[in-house]
Amino acid sequence: MYSELKEKVLEANLQLPRHGLVTFTWGNVSEIDRASGILAIKPSGVEYSQMTTDDIVIVDLDGIVVEGQLNPSSDTATHIEIYKAFPDVGGVVHTHSRNATIWAQAGLDIPALGTTHADYFYGDIPCTRCLTKDEISQNYEKNTGLVIVEEFALRQLDPMSVPSVIVSGHAPFSWGKDATDAVHNAVVLEEVAAMAIATRSLNSGIKIQQALSDKHYLRKHGANAYYGQH
Amino acid sequence: MYSELKEKVLEANLQLPRHGLVTFTWGNVSEIDRASGILAIKPSGVEYSQMTTDDIVIVDLDGIVVEGQLNPSSDTATHIEIYKAFPDVGGVVHTHSRNATIWAQAGLDIPALGTTHADYFYGDIPCTRCLTKDEISQNYEKNTGLVIVEEFALRQLDPMSVPSVIVSGHAPFSWGKDATDAVHNAVVLEEVAAMAIATRSLNSGIKIQQALSDKHYLRKHGANAYYGQH
Amino acid sequence: MYSELKEKVLEANLQLPRHGLVTFTWGNVSEIDRASGILAIKPSGVEYSQMTTDDIVIVDLDGIVVEGQLNPSSDTATHIEIYKAFPDVGGVVHTHSRNATIWAQAGLDIPALGTTHADYFYGDIPCTRCLTKDEISQNYEKNTGLVIVEEFALRQLDPMSVPSVIVSGHAPFSWGKDATDAVHNAVVLEEVAAMAIATRSLNSGIKIQQALSDKHYLRKHGANAYYGQH
Amino acid sequence: MYSELKEKVLEANLQLPRHGLVTFTWGNVSEIDRASGILAIKPSGVEYSQMTTDDIVIVDLDGIVVEGQLNPSSDTATHIEIYKAFPDVGGVVHTHSRNATIWAQAGLDIPALGTTHADYFYGDIPCTRCLTKDEISQNYEKNTGLVIVEEFALRQLDPMSVPSVIVSGHAPFSWGKDATDAVHNAVVLEEVAAMAIATRSLNSGIKIQQALSDKHYLRKHGANAYYGQH
Repeated sequence: MYSELKEKVLEANLQLPRHGLVTFTWGNVSEIDRASGILAIKPSGVEYSQMTTDDIVIVDLDGIVVEGQLNPSSDTATHIEIYKAFPDVGGVVHTHSRNATIWAQAGLDIPALGTTHADYFYGDIPCTRCLTKDEISQNYEKNTGLVIVEEFALRQLDPMSVPSVIVSGHAPFSWGKDATDAVHNAVVLEEVAAMAIATRSLNSGIKIQQALSDKHYLRKHGANAYYGQH
Repeated sequence: MYSELKEKVLEANLQLPRHGLVTFTWGNVSEIDRASGILAIKPSGVEYSQMTTDDIVIVDLDGIVVEGQLNPSSDTATHIEIYKAFPDVGGVVHTHSRNATIWAQAGLDIPALGTTHADYFYGDIPCTRCLTKDEISQNYEKNTGLVIVEEFALRQLDPMSVPSVIVSGHAPFSWGKDATDAVHNAVVLEEVAAMAIATRSLNSGIKIQQALSDKHYLRKHGANAYYGQH
Repeated sequence: MYSELKEKVLEANLQLPRHGLVTFTWGNVSEIDRASGILAIKPSGVEYSQMTTDDIVIVDLDGIVVEGQLNPSSDTATHIEIYKAFPDVGGVVHTHSRNATIWAQAGLDIPALGTTHADYFYGDIPCTRCLTKDEISQNYEKNTGLVIVEEFALRQLDPMSVPSVIVSGHAPFSWGKDATDAVHNAVVLEEVAAMAIATRSLNSGIKIQQALSDKHYLRKHGANAYYGQH
Repeated sequence: MYSELKEKVLEANLQLPRHGLVTFTWGNVSEIDRASGILAIKPSGVEYSQMTTDDIVIVDLDGIVVEGQLNPSSDTATHIEIYKAFPDVGGVVHTHSRNATIWAQAGLDIPALGTTHADYFYGDIPCTRCLTKDEISQNYEKNTGLVIVEEFALRQLDPMSVPSVIVSGHAPFSWGKDATDAVHNAVVLEEVAAMAIATRSLNSGIKIQQALSDKHYLRKHGANAYYGQH
């Protein structure tokens, strides 16, 4: 069962090392089947070069393993909160990709500084608040998800227009309409994170013009998009 | 028809990932056939690994598709304005290569700081002014081309001596006598952009000597060039 | 004799160039057999591409060669002091990996700034004091080991919870339960060193929350670990 | 004739792209045969992937081509001045490798900051003075060599103990006992240049201890060296 979904999730996980987003096993991708109420996710601590379809774990939205011999990623509870709160999200990815993680460690939003960013992210990529001591000590991974959701609610952000977040002191999460799309957004996040570090070193106060941000986001997304082979 | 031109433009486009200048489909190269008044350009949003000669689109200088099933690059109108204003340009390339884009995001010219730069670019590589809100909302890609042309006119720059520009808040465009030459210049641009970021971090006020800039540019270009197998 | 140990040490040494941790021959890995009181270590100045099992040198804890035709690594005496003082260490690695070496040259601890660090290192990675002129002129490599051991004693650090050190003005040493584990830690060290440089450039005063450091270290290590396939 | 020398020089030139030191044709290596008073050098502007032994040019110490169909590197006159002034030099290499060139553009010596540097370079790697307008306009490449030689004389540096220089506003030259050794030193130069940029960003006033510099240089070089398989 779920073999097609597991195949897709395996393939999306294998894209992480190909795009240079992971060291060792530091990353995990999932995809949800909303009709069945289950998600397929990478097992915890298994090497990409060894991973097979059978290793992918199927869990329900309470985090109960439905199919699979291995433990699911320790970040499963974070993925689940994202799926619960953001109904259009079909895939979630977590990495410690270098440049996005640098912004997380700095505890700062990744500012929108150019059209590379604006083509994929409408506005700054938010950095969450720090978790409290209590949130860390109990249900840490679930609380990480809740803090992400809280940040998007507080800032009134549409998760499909800003398909990434950085968790303060930790690392990024990205998402998309499915697992492949989530990985695609994680690659873009890493690139714009790298560009933003050096841009700020050259010109510390710079921001993108609002009109340019609007233009680039809307020429790729929404009703009047004209980029690609629509 | 135009199969030779399409072959050359395909090959020039494929050089972009080989030189590490592109993520996903973020780049496009064109070449003009001035006799026929048409240009061959990459289709919009197609992956490099999938692209064939038949996918290359032929458009005229009004942007009308003359041959090809796919939409041309969404940046086609920018390429066209560059060809119209700069009669010696035979090829144009647009990328979001990391280091050149960092300068674009910073809204700063790439300063001439050494002979690596001077071998290819005579003086600073200009950053355009920002487009106005109106220029962004209507005919954005065409206006991007017009702003590039305006910048070269205002500064009285010879486009063949400074074969690149960075568009403020956006990314670079490069050009050359044909598509291959344009890509060559885009590779050099990325390298000098990277060097310039770190050079300024070590010594914020430094510039190349004018005499050294003259020497290096002129030993490779113009009537008395003596570099290579002339 | 010792052919299995030499095989493991060869393989661990060959992982250094695969992970991009070495230029030329600048690195060496050893593993100890505590029962026999000997260690296997890379020969001095031999290229990785030429190295065979027979080249691996067996030395005792006085540094006397027990088996092998070649000189052991010039850093052997440093490895020995680490094995003598830290009884749980089974493997040691020395490299000049770029980013960890940058912190060594700066003479600064690598600060704990995020969970990537906390997953492997419990607290800052210490930079030793400078060696004295006398410590440098006589028994330099042995004294390098002694200064490492002194630093851990002074700070009351558990070497298995902080499995790396940077030697001021020099470069890092890492260790682990065996040679492979030591190399694993050296890879992580290099990654967190790179992240820390850029993090401090964005936000010079930042530190990880203590609770987050505790949580991440303890979810991977110790009695209540729940990461991976335990 | 000179086929063995040409073979060695071809191979040393091909090592430049393998070590990531060159973009396009931006680099050249030569080796001298002191008995015959000639040197073999890369032709000007020929791609590495196309280069054959027959393309290597033999010139005498007046720069006259003795054998070969192609123009020698435009930097030949610089190589010649280095060979004339430094009698122990057997090979010379010029590149625009990114990090060494950054220091050249900044017009600053590469400071000795750690043992990676000290293993190969005894003290700072000097940056020459700028050439005068006259030195640039006439016999530029020869004058580049003379300014290098002048810098070593002024600072009373032994060229075999400091086997690299950076030419202000331009790029590095390295040398060694033969062409292969020169390329080896160019690789090290690039690595220490990269480390030095980031080290200074973390700790702007830091220098290596003199005693540590002495120790590391002398354990690899000179009468009492004990590194490698001596």
